[in-house]
Amino acid sequence: MTAEGAPFPEGRRSILIEDVLTLQGRRDIFINTSGRIEAEGEGIGRRWRNDAEYLIEGRGLLAIPGLVNTHTHAAMSLLRGYADDLPLQTWLSEKIWPLEALLTGEDVYWGTRLACLEMIRSGTIAFADMYFFMEDAARAVAESGLKAMLSYGFIDLSDPERREREIQATERLVAAIRGMGNPKIRPALGPHAVYTVSEEGLRWCAGLSAREGIPVMIHLAETEREIADAVQQHGRRPVQILDECGILTPRTVAAHGCWLDRAECALLGERGVHVSHNPASNMKLAVGRAMPYSWLREAGVNVTLGTDGCASNNNLDLFEEMKTAALLQKFSWNSPTLLPASEALTMATSAGARALGLGNGIIAPGEPADIVLIDRHAVCNTPLHHPASNLVYSCTGSAVRTVICDGDILMEDRVIPWEEEVIRGASAAAADLVRRGSGK
Amino acid sequence: MTAEGAPFPEGRRSILIEDVLTLQGRRDIFINTSGRIEAEGEGIGRRWRNDAEYLIEGRGLLAIPGLVNTHTHAAMSLLRGYADDLPLQTWLSEKIWPLEALLTGEDVYWGTRLACLEMIRSGTIAFADMYFFMEDAARAVAESGLKAMLSYGFIDLSDPERREREIQATERLVAAIRGMGNPKIRPALGPHAVYTVSEEGLRWCAGLSAREGIPVMIHLAETEREIADAVQQHGRRPVQILDECGILTPRTVAAHGCWLDRAECALLGERGVHVSHNPASNMKLAVGRAMPYSWLREAGVNVTLGTDGCASNNNLDLFEEMKTAALLQKFSWNSPTLLPASEALTMATSAGARALGLGNGIIAPGEPADIVLIDRHAVCNTPLHHPASNLVYSCTGSAVRTVICDGDILMEDRVIPWEEEVIRGASAAAADLVRRGSGK
Repeated sequence: MTAEGAPFPEGRRSILIEDVLTLQGRRDIFINTSGRIEAEGEGIGRRWRNDAEYLIEGRGLLAIPGLVNTHTHAAMSLLRGYADDLPLQTWLSEKIWPLEALLTGEDVYWGTRLACLEMIRSGTIAFADMYFFMEDAARAVAESGLKAMLSYGFIDLSDPERREREIQATERLVAAIRGMGNPKIRPALGPHAVYTVSEEGLRWCAGLSAREGIPVMIHLAETEREIADAVQQHGRRPVQILDECGILTPRTVAAHGCWLDRAECALLGERGVHVSHNPASNMKLAVGRAMPYSWLREAGVNVTLGTDGCASNNNLDLFEEMKTAALLQKFSWNSPTLLPASEALTMATSAGARALGLGNGIIAPGEPADIVLIDRHAVCNTPLHHPASNLVYSCTGSAVRTVICDGDILMEDRVIPWEEEVIRGASAAAADLVRRGSGK
Repeated sequence: MTAEGAPFPEGRRSILIEDVLTLQGRRDIFINTSGRIEAEGEGIGRRWRNDAEYLIEGRGLLAIPGLVNTHTHAAMSLLRGYADDLPLQTWLSEKIWPLEALLTGEDVYWGTRLACLEMIRSGTIAFADMYFFMEDAARAVAESGLKAMLSYGFIDLSDPERREREIQATERLVAAIRGMGNPKIRPALGPHAVYTVSEEGLRWCAGLSAREGIPVMIHLAETEREIADAVQQHGRRPVQILDECGILTPRTVAAHGCWLDRAECALLGERGVHVSHNPASNMKLAVGRAMPYSWLREAGVNVTLGTDGCASNNNLDLFEEMKTAALLQKFSWNSPTLLPASEALTMATSAGARALGLGNGIIAPGEPADIVLIDRHAVCNTPLHHPASNLVYSCTGSAVRTVICDGDILMEDRVIPWEEEVIRGASAAAADLVRRGSGK
């Protein structure tokens, strides 16, 4: 703490984290006013102490790179716990879609604020989002200080008129986000999936992505039915369709991938596509198969981690998701050695950062200062034989104390100044949404 | 809070919890000095306010019955994160067993204290334990204020001399726990499993259990190999062996049950055996099959929840375990409607309480005052469409604020007075154990 004791400095200051434990040992970390790590090493604090405008005492804390959520629908936090334990079609057609049809921009704003609050509290510093009213989502993200890649969920259902509207909505969002001039928030394209977007729609997205270097988010091979329907209707599996439409590039993050076969994993590797594993959602919706992690790894695919939306998880805690991923892979593919803790941690940090173009997701000079400080004396870190094991298998996001994103302190000692305002606003928005849904 | 403001009253006082939300609506709850719920209902606080020696303001809190962990090895908390992601035999023979061979009573004391701390912090009020140096474990439990059923892990490996020693150790523990005269702590018998205990050993345990009404804890049908080995060596599957030895009674809690067939589920139902589902451990060790919950439910079996030990989980958070159970059942048995949130909550509360003979595990007059108060304004409870959904799918134990066990306040507003002492003591014990294990 500085002499003033102000926990949330206005504007960006240089920060020295002194004597913190990292996975590489005891370190001092100096963050410059550009929000990047200037120096990192044992005892380097002496050199930087006079330059630091803000000091964080690191003793008792464990520093790891910030977590990155590569697939979610943030505003669905308003639907958390609204409809669970239902068959997929009932859940969608009787519960989720009717309520989503009533969503306003203000609902999405509050839902996204709530999601940002939850992500910060559990150590996430960036996320990839796909939903509607994304200009309102962007406003919420900007107020949180998080980094995000925001896409409008493009669904044309092979209807040319609808496709035109989706193209316009997508172009509007790209322009709006560029207009914000916020370096933490970037636009992405969100063709929803092969079963909701025509080949023309997919090709349009691929073209824009290629011309302007815009990332693409898409759902891929989530359910067996998605594969069967594609084969029946188009004579080809989803991966082939996406490849022919130009969607499979290093700019694309494909979510789920549960039903990929081995050849498809190899193709995704060749194309440089990133895959987002969403184990909790896949289990809850009983999709019937776990993403083939070992095939993807063999193919050199960058496998990342996502929570999916709160209607099918129902939280955004990537610590919980790391454990679920490590457990599901072991169980589902019959191997207690598959996806060890160190790899789960890599999925949630450096793999995610690389997928979203946010540097290498490591604590090293020149990297964005995306650092999460964790209570090393929490019960979940006692004893501390192997920090990576504890982080993945015994901790949840509640062990996070302080979150730094691009050098901005978003939470310190678990305090986020705007937390209560968001709890109140989001609760009211959710209640009002359900009231409108029930026709009252 | 009383006028004195003392958060941890010495001795047991009567307590009034005013205006708290339960799953049945808004309630006042009055707890008498015998540690039981005297009255419960909307607005009943007015009647009891003058009798209450201690007041808890319930607004902003959600009250649920305390959680019950029906299968763990508490002191293995010292091995948390020590050896993960290994093949089962390597894990056991090269990592766990060599260290367990060095355990002292003092290690078990500190490991059990750490486990009790963790359980209280995550809303657990009682647990069933099986391990070694259980007199030391009993001492640790007594200091925590939790309720427990403690068994010595009986392993004779069909060696008559060893069996005699196990019998003596078991009898010593039963006598020692009875000698403590602590109504919260009861002895149980812990024949480890069919592959580690001879039929003579099983019969001896069954006989003592029947004569003196002592509960029995046992591992059952955890791995496919356990089944195959029993068939090969004894010509019978494990359930049949246990039945012939008299182990299958309403006094028995059988843990895991992953490889039970349908007829075995029916038999367990007829015998009144309780089954403890341990989903996280089963997934992490890749046992290959999820406990057949729907068959057990059809057979009327009381299915409960356990975390297993920290070497194979690696925490004792039953909130996390409820979610893992609900997700694993859906995923593994291909049904998004299987094990809904309300049933997961029942498994962790009333089913567990009944299995351990601790009443009905509900908040009702005459029941033990085992009550957990949860922050209803935590992010995981925002919005609060359906509390059971949030408790199971979005919360972890970190949302627990206050824990009451038999009318004793073990944690209030997340403060446990002896927490730091235990973190220090357990850390030191674990470090020393590993040092001894490495021969330094």
